[in-house]
Amino acid sequence: MKIVLIGATGDVGQAALAALSPRHDIITVGRTSGDLACDIADPVSVAAMYDHVGQVDAVVCTAGNVHFGPLAEFTHDQFMVGLKDKVMGQINLVLAGRDYVADGGSFTLTSGILDQDPIRMGAGAATANGALAGFVRGAAIEMPKGQRLNVVSPGLLDISVPRYGEWFPGHIAVPSKAVGLAYVKCVEGPQTGQVITVH
Amino acid sequence: MKIVLIGATGDVGQAALAALSPRHDIITVGRTSGDLACDIADPVSVAAMYDHVGQVDAVVCTAGNVHFGPLAEFTHDQFMVGLKDKVMGQINLVLAGRDYVADGGSFTLTSGILDQDPIRMGAGAATANGALAGFVRGAAIEMPKGQRLNVVSPGLLDISVPRYGEWFPGHIAVPSKAVGLAYVKCVEGPQTGQVITVH
Ligand SMILES: NC(=O)c1ccc[n+]([C@@H]2O[C@H](COP(=O)([O-])OP(=O)(O)OC[C@H]3O[C@@H](n4cnc5c(N)ncnc54)[C@H](OP(=O)(O)O)[C@@H]3O)[C@@H](O)[C@H]2O)c1
Ligand SMILES: NC(=O)c1ccc[n+]([C@@H]2O[C@H](COP(=O)([O-])OP(=O)(O)OC[C@H]3O[C@@H](n4cnc5c(N)ncnc54)[C@H](OP(=O)(O)O)[C@@H]3O)[C@@H](O)[C@H]2O)c1
Repeated sequence: MKIVLIGATGDVGQAALAALSPRHDIITVGRTSGDLACDIADPVSVAAMYDHVGQVDAVVCTAGNVHFGPLAEFTHDQFMVGLKDKVMGQINLVLAGRDYVADGGSFTLTSGILDQDPIRMGAGAATANGALAGFVRGAAIEMPKGQRLNVVSPGLLDISVPRYGEWFPGHIAVPSKAVGLAYVKCVEGPQTGQVITVH
Repeated sequence: MKIVLIGATGDVGQAALAALSPRHDIITVGRTSGDLACDIADPVSVAAMYDHVGQVDAVVCTAGNVHFGPLAEFTHDQFMVGLKDKVMGQINLVLAGRDYVADGGSFTLTSGILDQDPIRMGAGAATANGALAGFVRGAAIEMPKGQRLNVVSPGLLDISVPRYGEWFPGHIAVPSKAVGLAYVKCVEGPQTGQVITVH
């Protein structure tokens, strides 16, 4: 399959790329990294990206920014970072991508564990992750042309422990390989409207 | 208890008001209706509202707008209506309200069934409802002064069937009385970080 993978250079993106690239043709996308530049938070940039890649069989997104900070210091605008970038960025990919994804093709988004198993400073991520779960359940039933829509919800990745491990006391890090397989399941399997947890 | 109820004139708000008002002192708030005017989507308006009401024991919100429409026609800005109004509006009430709510007091928000049991045209509501579930689970663990934070997720209310029933084929309408009781549970009970479903 021809797959566009947004966020391929990130920790989650590398896990998805390692699992998908031996099996499929991958076009990598990032704001500054990858084969093509695109900022998912900007609908104009997303439209230009699809225009460039043309028809694809699957869209996989492992990109999306959220603000982390103590709830006591969280501002309106910091909550909006996650809603605009991680949530609307990934919704933008679906809204603009329906005409470019093949019949029976798929969209696979990325959320995370923090709406189910919260940590301090994670309220913005929890909100964004919950929104993405609601979005795929709500939107999957209205996708055209048999297109499927799922979201992978990983726990803290093993390779991300050096960066974030301190914020996740007592969390069991998940093997990147298991996270990569979740993207293979969403791309090649039949499911839709699912939150695929790797916790 | 002294309770501020935002959205008291709405269908859900009337259910909450009927259950809470025999037991508590209620100050009602809406953009145009109620004892006090406030637009929850505007942080400045929310700050002014708290300044006016002063210390309270509980904040209950049954307000929040989302766009309904076929996914095929949904735009970025229409998704943002729900994220800015229903989601950030209710988050604004929590962020600005922590200094005004008593020790051990509570915030009770309102989401809805559509992230769990979707309908056509409901992708915006599903996204907003999921975000609110993630928010209360993520933020409850960081609330100050023993303050509690929950969200009530009602199904279609019996009194709303004339307005919305056509959009909910096969859904069992929930008694407004049961929905009202969910707000009593959140205000008077001990739970926090919970999605209280009335489905
Ligand atoms: N790492 C974990 O353990 C973990 C676990 C669960 C969930 N998550 C979630 O997974 C997502 C990725 O996390 P990560 O740790 O892999 O992040 P990361 O290492 O910082 O990588 C982010 C990737 O996304 C790209 N990107 C970021 N913002 C973008 C935008 N607006 N438009 C296009 N591309 C963008 C980045 O490339 P450019 O810099 O070139 O744009 C990079 O390739 C986040 O939403 C995170 O919350 C991560
Ligand atoms: N009705 C149902 O069956 C049902 C079921 C599940 C979930 N819900 C959810 O519950 C919420 C309320 O629904 P509803 O049917 O009760 O709505 P409604 O009948 O239209 O009432 C909305 C109430 O909220 C106030 N309001 C609206 N936007 C506001 C804002 N930005 N700031 C302050 N007040 C605002 C309105 O007063 P003003 O016009 O004066 O502002 C009114 O009192 C919605 O989020 C809805 O999705 C409803």
